[in-house]
Amino acid sequence: MEAAARVIARRGVRGLRVEELAAEAGVSTALIYYHFKDRTGILRATLEFISDRAERYTTERDSGAQPLDARGELEQTLLLELQDTAEVRENSTAWGELRASAVFDPELREDLARATLVWVQEIAELLGRVRPMGGAAALAGSAERLTALLEGLSVRWLSGSLPLAHARELMACAIDTELERLR
Amino acid sequence: MEAAARVIARRGVRGLRVEELAAEAGVSTALIYYHFKDRTGILRATLEFISDRAERYTTERDSGAQPLDARGELEQTLLLELQDTAEVRENSTAWGELRASAVFDPELREDLARATLVWVQEIAELLGRVRPMGGAAALAGSAERLTALLEGLSVRWLSGSLPLAHARELMACAIDTELERLR
Repeated sequence: MEAAARVIARRGVRGLRVEELAAEAGVSTALIYYHFKDRTGILRATLEFISDRAERYTTERDSGAQPLDARGELEQTLLLELQDTAEVRENSTAWGELRASAVFDPELREDLARATLVWVQEIAELLGRVRPMGGAAALAGSAERLTALLEGLSVRWLSGSLPLAHARELMACAIDTELERLR
Repeated sequence: MEAAARVIARRGVRGLRVEELAAEAGVSTALIYYHFKDRTGILRATLEFISDRAERYTTERDSGAQPLDARGELEQTLLLELQDTAEVRENSTAWGELRASAVFDPELREDLARATLVWVQEIAELLGRVRPMGGAAALAGSAERLTALLEGLSVRWLSGSLPLAHARELMACAIDTELERLR
């Protein structure tokens, strides 16, 4: 799965060749087909893998660090998606590619909608810890806006239209604004 | 240019073949190379074409309609990007594809950054008519958030993760929230 995320981040979903993936993973193409059945199976498993990995790197905290309050948790979880590390760059590139290719390929859409929903509900839960009286629908709406904005900012950063530091500032302001709205 | 936007919206930037484009436009491939030099030339001209077309369909108003106030102009300009018409769907798909392919292809980045900036400044100007005392930096920040959110919502809609009517609601709320922030 790591190899698949790497190959997609390097060549895009449309450039994914099973031969290159097999070479990258150091296994045979037969083994890949045995495990994932077909190309769609590979893309589905990769989507799950990068969702889990994003969940990990946005929620892991330094064991020595002070525990964060609810607002700090929310901010960290969102802002850690905008970091210039190889892992985040690769993950965001692959996520953006899976999203972009689902516009053309209906097969991935249900899995992508499910992964998006899990993410939106996770952010809605964090928003609810800061604003427990916000109301579930309003919390969900804020979470949808914040995560859609993050996707928009992320692809602008990766495509060279927005410096990373400024993307983080815009995101931090949006969090403030949504929390004000939910007050 | 219309043919190029259609072919990109149908197959993606990575699926664009000059032969198909020539057939779609009813001209020879030689004429296309004569005009645009190469593939990058075609993509640059398409980006300009779809930016101009979006500018047109978001700012044209019915000649019989009441003139809109500043806030109405702002809302219309943004919400008309979220319409289920063949033209908007094709334009948004092609824009998303050019954005996504610039992550992999540095040649398009400068043109894309320029087109993004024109759009952000147009929205900042509309925001400034509603909130003339907002301050240029704050207006630009709001415009960057609103346009990045629109890109995020648009690709969620096109990839089947978000119903169009709900995308419009989320966008309308975001406009409200940014205008409150600028008050």
